[in-house]
Amino acid sequence: MKIDAAGLQVLSREECMELLGSTPIGRIVYTDRALPAVQPVNFHLDGTSIVIRTGVGSKLSAAAGNAIVAFEADEFDAETRTGWSVTAVGHARAVDDPGEIARLSALPLRPWAPGGREHFIVVSTEQISGRRLHH
Amino acid sequence: MKIDAAGLQVLSREECMELLGSTPIGRIVYTDRALPAVQPVNFHLDGTSIVIRTGVGSKLSAAAGNAIVAFEADEFDAETRTGWSVTAVGHARAVDDPGEIARLSALPLRPWAPGGREHFIVVSTEQISGRRLHH
Repeated sequence: MKIDAAGLQVLSREECMELLGSTPIGRIVYTDRALPAVQPVNFHLDGTSIVIRTGVGSKLSAAAGNAIVAFEADEFDAETRTGWSVTAVGHARAVDDPGEIARLSALPLRPWAPGGREHFIVVSTEQISGRRLHH
Repeated sequence: MKIDAAGLQVLSREECMELLGSTPIGRIVYTDRALPAVQPVNFHLDGTSIVIRTGVGSKLSAAAGNAIVAFEADEFDAETRTGWSVTAVGHARAVDDPGEIARLSALPLRPWAPGGREHFIVVSTEQISGRRLHH
């Protein structure tokens, strides 16, 4: 088991992918008018890509549509003080190809938030890292 | 009740602060070598400031020690698809005053991760915003 300088277990890419696929909520991290910004979103892992639905013209769509972003998911238990986190960094891409939109629309990705969310953002997991905390 | 363009309830500063104080885990969002970075941390709300303990010389300490960062906390329920999130943006400051270190050391903030964490970062909540999702 590989342990980092902070005493946390280092997860493999395969473990990171499996954990990402196990949770419905993550957080997209981007830059909004030169300031760090973060927004929780529900998502679907499509192969090794993170698929997010957002509103046309949303702030997220404008700021993160074509940028390098981070995407984080985690699960912690306050009782046992254990948990894991996975962070991916990669290009976010606003999807505009009608064929790809049709394919993504068929994914089991139903937005939690109300309102129209007909815009897809796909984040590639070019870098991925994860840590597990246990005692 | 104020609702935003995405259909989410807009929380007041007071509600945001109360929710921030109700959870032990948040995520600090910063820039690391020009890339967006995010790290989950346990924290303590000290008045309106977010207090984090980290290792001396840690990546977080180096990158977020004196920068504008975002700090996010949330709680979502996958069954009911409800939850809330709060994001603060403000200056992060590495604490080096011995008197302040002594005061912060007495806070009920015990790091979850192992390893020495004798370095404090304080994030001021200059901007704070929150949303609640319910049906």
